[in-house]
This record gives sequence, structure tokens and C-alpha cells, in this order.
Amino acid sequence: MTTDTLASPATADPDALIADMGLRARAAAKRLAVTATAEKAAALNAAARWLRAKANTILEANARDMEAGKAAGLTSAMLDRLRLDENRLGAIADAVEAVAALPDPVGAIIDRAKRPNGMELERVRVPLGVVGIIYESRPNVTADAAALGLMSGNAVILRGGSEAVHSNGAIHAAFVGGLTEAGLPAEAVQIIPTQDRAAVGALLRAQGHIDIIIPRGGKGLVARVQDEARVPVLAHLDGICHLYIDGSADPDKAVALAVNAKMRRTGICGATETILIDRSYGAPQAIVDALIAAGCEVRGDSAITALSPHVTPASAVDWDSEYLDAIVSIAAVDGIEGALAHIDAHSSRHTDAIVTEDEAAARRFLGEVDSAIVMHNASTQFADGGEFGLGAEIGIATGRLHARGPVALEGLTTYKWLVHGTGQVRP
Amino acid sequence: MTTDTLASPATADPDALIADMGLRARAAAKRLAVTATAEKAAALNAAARWLRAKANTILEANARDMEAGKAAGLTSAMLDRLRLDENRLGAIADAVEAVAALPDPVGAIIDRAKRPNGMELERVRVPLGVVGIIYESRPNVTADAAALGLMSGNAVILRGGSEAVHSNGAIHAAFVGGLTEAGLPAEAVQIIPTQDRAAVGALLRAQGHIDIIIPRGGKGLVARVQDEARVPVLAHLDGICHLYIDGSADPDKAVALAVNAKMRRTGICGATETILIDRSYGAPQAIVDALIAAGCEVRGDSAITALSPHVTPASAVDWDSEYLDAIVSIAAVDGIEGALAHIDAHSSRHTDAIVTEDEAAARRFLGEVDSAIVMHNASTQFADGGEFGLGAEIGIATGRLHARGPVALEGLTTYKWLVHGTGQVRP
Repeated sequence: MTTDTLASPATADPDALIADMGLRARAAAKRLAVTATAEKAAALNAAARWLRAKANTILEANARDMEAGKAAGLTSAMLDRLRLDENRLGAIADAVEAVAALPDPVGAIIDRAKRPNGMELERVRVPLGVVGIIYESRPNVTADAAALGLMSGNAVILRGGSEAVHSNGAIHAAFVGGLTEAGLPAEAVQIIPTQDRAAVGALLRAQGHIDIIIPRGGKGLVARVQDEARVPVLAHLDGICHLYIDGSADPDKAVALAVNAKMRRTGICGATETILIDRSYGAPQAIVDALIAAGCEVRGDSAITALSPHVTPASAVDWDSEYLDAIVSIAAVDGIEGALAHIDAHSSRHTDAIVTEDEAAARRFLGEVDSAIVMHNASTQFADGGEFGLGAEIGIATGRLHARGPVALEGLTTYKWLVHGTGQVRP
Repeated sequence: MTTDTLASPATADPDALIADMGLRARAAAKRLAVTATAEKAAALNAAARWLRAKANTILEANARDMEAGKAAGLTSAMLDRLRLDENRLGAIADAVEAVAALPDPVGAIIDRAKRPNGMELERVRVPLGVVGIIYESRPNVTADAAALGLMSGNAVILRGGSEAVHSNGAIHAAFVGGLTEAGLPAEAVQIIPTQDRAAVGALLRAQGHIDIIIPRGGKGLVARVQDEARVPVLAHLDGICHLYIDGSADPDKAVALAVNAKMRRTGICGATETILIDRSYGAPQAIVDALIAAGCEVRGDSAITALSPHVTPASAVDWDSEYLDAIVSIAAVDGIEGALAHIDAHSSRHTDAIVTEDEAAARRFLGEVDSAIVMHNASTQFADGGEFGLGAEIGIATGRLHARGPVALEGLTTYKWLVHGTGQVRP
């Protein structure tokens, strides 16, 4: 069957394949744009039931991917991202139900106005249309993307990593089941049926068919998508996050925040990579010691290496590194000016935080740091749609247009202007 | 002086020129992002005074452009767009003052939330950063773009049409005067000092220096920008606008709206290009006659040609034409279903309107037509930022991302998330 599909005329021509999927997605999107919240939620809840009912099938499919992954020599970290079990699958189904329970952004009135000539204006949220999502090994993205896309009234075209092809196919089947059960078009959630890389190129060029592409994955993937895409891209780039310990920081908060921001989970984009310590701060030693005690490798400038024999000297490249590992670079800076200058030069504009008891310093930091998320006395590890109360996220946008920071349902919508008149003509 | 500039090393390398302008714009943008509303308004009001005080210089510069334009054989329509006089210059200065009086979007809190762990979240509007604006012959765009950019806290890099080079330079000088008088960096409003087309290419590739490009002009310009740009583009494409006369339309409103929507000004993007008439509508003849009496050429399908010997048969290309002229295509359709299908197939998704007394039909049309602006019983000619109460506009976005419809101050902003904590760490 798979061989048949790959040999079909549609997949022989990647542009034709994507155009065909795009047309069917567009038709589904039109239906979804006028589908009531309860119907969308019903489809998602049905999909969650299918995920649970088909657990054995999905876990078997995942076992095939795991075997192939081992044979292909995937690293243990990659295999861990790929692996599903009863618990993880249960969490995936729970997350789909959680999205079904979120407030529907579609139809919300952003603002309204009455003009002097009596015309009434409304700006109303509507879905983006057809969303393409390109991602790597984690199969839960298939469910997250399908759920967020559907709840926000969009049709989605998914392209997962080849290492998860069987897992993704089995999860996708649960969504087809849920959509069908709820009487909604199955084409609302499509998955590209070939692993041919040319299909990704076709997706990136599919102006008119695809309204936006969201890449989720490593730097290489995002860079390729940004470079090749002719359709708009909502990109998530590096998370080179900073924690600045101001001279007026509370020492207990400073230690707790430094350890949590760096070490809670080192592989997420909101993990702090560089800590900046005000030269006037009284207890830098405790921060360095606590990080080392927590198992973190510390690379520092000369002021920091002087604090502990376990600190190694940082090189220039450290200040621009997203380690995603138990490594931190620490620099001493001259107060908030020094911190702002360092962050301006090295931040990836994802999330940066200040630790201080000085409200004026906090206000200045929040005002001047030009990042998607700026925090005062909180761990950068909170940079997450779920933690922000958005229910879920499709990614954290580091660009400036459309949506910035955690992107959830609202980020998958646009708006239109409605004008209610009584026959007004323009003078 | 101009020759010196053109021969300088910077302009010899367009990428270096744009990088240099971009760095200076970035520095200015940082300053503008934290500049108070009153200071920005003061700079704009000072610029307006300079525009009035330097009227003779600006009109002389314009006269040079007009002479060159005539010599180059510009059409009378192009010369009219290029031409300035006392009145037009006064209107330009008035418009700058009007922008200075608009509410400042920067710093506005979009929403806020308190998390169960006590963290407080705010989404706050901030400027986009550095905005590149590429436009054609009308010199007033120089002032509009500078005013909207500055008031929204952005630095702008302007590239006008070569035919308006002296006029644009003279208007730009008034902004430099206003900025300097108000103590703000003159680099907040820069104009590319060479007419070399390679500079446009460099601008379109200037990722990191330019946050967004806004092209204002004809199809050719916008298409080139969309094709070549590596930085995000906020584009305004065609305005193939429709007016649908429903079976339940009021005949007086139908005639008045048809004539106004088509004929008030035929060259603007919100002008109706195609009128759709429900076959069940009782008075189609009056609409056709009124348009012909108003001096409009009418091209129709067979049902419409049957109404008047002055109607010529429409060909397939008419339904996809933006005439920007006193020409209209008219088709008979089978009720709202037929209208929705025609609009879906042919609209450029700019502005479409329904004329009807049937509220249910209006609701369906407003709900299902997927255009930036959808109107009920109002002329499509109202599609304009000023008419919408936005004070001014930098264009009408026909894409779906970031901003849609008239783009004014808010469309030139993004937001950041502020997190106010008391030492929260993520469990």
C-alpha cells in the first residue's frame, strides 16, 4: 500500500501532491471556519478516545520506529524523544482534551467602533486557514499540532520526522477517527504521505495553498525552512536566555532562581544559558557553588574563575552558545547598564530575566530588554504556553511579526473587519 | 554633493550602505522605544512646522521632479500623483499633525493574567523596530510613512520612487528638522541616498537590520518585493472588490452604493470592480443605467448585456481584473450561494460588500466571505484607515499574518510578555 502511494502520480510530483493536499485542506478550512466550538471540541474529545482505544496499535507502531531508530544509530536522547509508552500516550490524550476545553478564539470581537456616519465596525478573530507544521522526532507534536490547529479552526498539513513515521501515522489515524465521528472533514488534519524531502520543498513554496508554516525542531530545520520558504514562516529560533543577578538581588532568591533557571531541565529553550552577576552583588560565590553542587559545569570570565577552582575560563563563543545541557556561562557585569549591553549583544531575544529587589531596576530591565519574554524574579524555565495559562503551545516565536512568545490558539488566528452600514456612501 | 555621496565607498557596496543605515536606525529605534508620547508628538508637530516653513524649497524640488518627469514622458496620471502645490503640501502637514494627535499604541497593555503561583503576566505593545518602506511616485508617502513610523516608536528607512527624488529629499529634510528640534535622533527617519536599484535588493535581504518591509505601490513593485525579500513583508496586493446586490436589497441603496462604490474614485484599491446581482433582484436595470449615466463602461454576462445596448459582453479575464478605471464587470448570480462562490473564486480578499435588507443573508455573507474587510450596506470605497478612524494608514494588508486590512499605528507594533514574580521557580 505504501509502495503504491509512493508510486502514484501525485507523489511522483511533490508540487502536485502538495497542491492536491492544499486544495482539500482549503475546503476543510472553509468548513472549520464556520464550525461551532462544541463541534470542534467534540472532534478533539473523540480523537482523545481514539488515542486511548488504539493504544496498542500506536505503541506497536512506535516500537517499529524505535527498532529502526536503534538500527540507524540514533542517540539515546533522540530515542528518548521518539519513545512512547502507556503514560506518555495517556498524557498526549489528556493534552488533546485540555485543548478541547480551552476558550475558542474564533469569533471573538477584538474591538468595535461606531463612526460619525453611523457605520459600525468590528474586528473579529478568524482562523488563519491552512497551517503547515514541519517537525522532528517527538510524535506528541502530531497530536499537539492537530489539536491546536483544529480548535483554532485551521486545517493542518503535518510533516513529521522520518524516524517517527509509523508513530505519527498511527496518531494521525486517531484524529481522522475523531473528525469522522464528529461529522467534520477528515482533510482537516492531513499528514504528508511520503518521506521524500522534495515534499517539504513543495510545502515551503505552496503560496496560495499554505497560509503559514510553523517549523518545530532544531536550528538546522528552522534555518532551512526560513531560507527556502516562499510562504510566511512563524519561527522559533534559539533560546539563549539570560538571568541577571542585580546588586539589589535577594541572595536566597538569586541562588534558587539560578539553579532552577539553568538546571530544572537543561534541554528546553527557556533554560538559562548565561548568568550575569552585578559586580556590586554581595554573594556571587554562593551562586557558583550551588550550580556546581547541582552538577553544572561553570564557565566564567576572570571575575568568576577567581571564585572557584571548578570554574573554567569561558571563551568568546560561550556568550553566544545555546548549550541545552548542564553547562552555564557566567559573566560579571557593571550593574544594569552592563547587563543590558551584554543581553543586547548576545540574547536570542527569547527570554531574559532580572533578579532584584529594586523596583526601579526591574522596571528599567522590563522596559529596555527587547525579548519576547522579560521576567522579574522568576525562573526563565516558566517560558512555556502551559505555564502562561495558554493551555498548550505550538512553539515560542522569536520573530517580531504576528505572534511573539508562546504561540497557542490566538496565534493561529487572524482577524477581519466587519462593517455594518445602513446604506452609507463615501462623500 | 549628490555625486560625492554616490561615489562614496558606502554606496559603492549596497549591502554595506544598508547595513550602515540599519545600524544607525537600530540605535535610533532603541531610543524611540523608550521615548514618551509627548516627545514623539513634539517631533511630528515640529516636522509639520518645517514642512510649512520650507514650502518654497519643497515646491521647487517638486518642480524639478515634474520637469524631469515630463521630459521622461510620464503619463498625466503619474504626473498628477507626483505633483505638489500649496494645498497638497498643507494637507501633508495637516496629516502629520493628525498622526501626532493619535493615541500612542506603545506601552498599551493588551491583556494581563495572574497565575496560580502568584506570577503576574502582562502583554505590552512595543514598536516593531526598524521598518523599511518602498514606494512609488507619490511624495506624500514620505511624510505619512515617517509620521506613522515615528509615532509608533519605529525607525524607518524610506525608499521612494526615482521620479520623486527631489521632492522626497525636501520632505525628509523637514523631518530631520523636526527630530533635531525635539532632541530625537535624526536617524529615526532615513532615506536611501542613492537611486541605484541594487540598494532595494540589499534592503530586502537585510535580515537583522530590517524588521519588516512595507511595499506601497503597483503590482510589479509588490511582486518583486515579495519575491526577493528575505525579511518579512507586509504586503498590499490587488483590490478586486465586489459589491453583491442581494434579492432583498433596497433598490435606492443598491443604486447609490453601486455608483459610489465604483465611481467615487476609480483609482483606489477599495473601488468596486465587479458587481454581482442576484437573479431574483427586482431592479437590475436601474443599476446598469445609473452606472452608464455616471460615465462607467459596463461589461456584463448574458443576463446583463440583455438589459442595455450599452453593455458589452464580459470575457473571462474581466472577473479577475482590477480596472482602477471607470469600467465595471457585472454578473448575475443565483442568490447568496452564487455570490459567495463567485467571490471565493475571484476576490483578491481586500474588501467585499453585500447590499440587502435580509439580516440573515448579511450575517452569512459577513461570516463566510474571507476578506480583510467585509461590509453590509456600505460602499467599498470606505476601505481606508482614515475612514475607519485609525487616523491614517500605511497601506491595506491583504495577507493574513500580523495585520490585516488598514494598517496604522497598531499594525506597526508587536508585543512582549512581562512576567512579574516574587522568586518563583518552576517545579
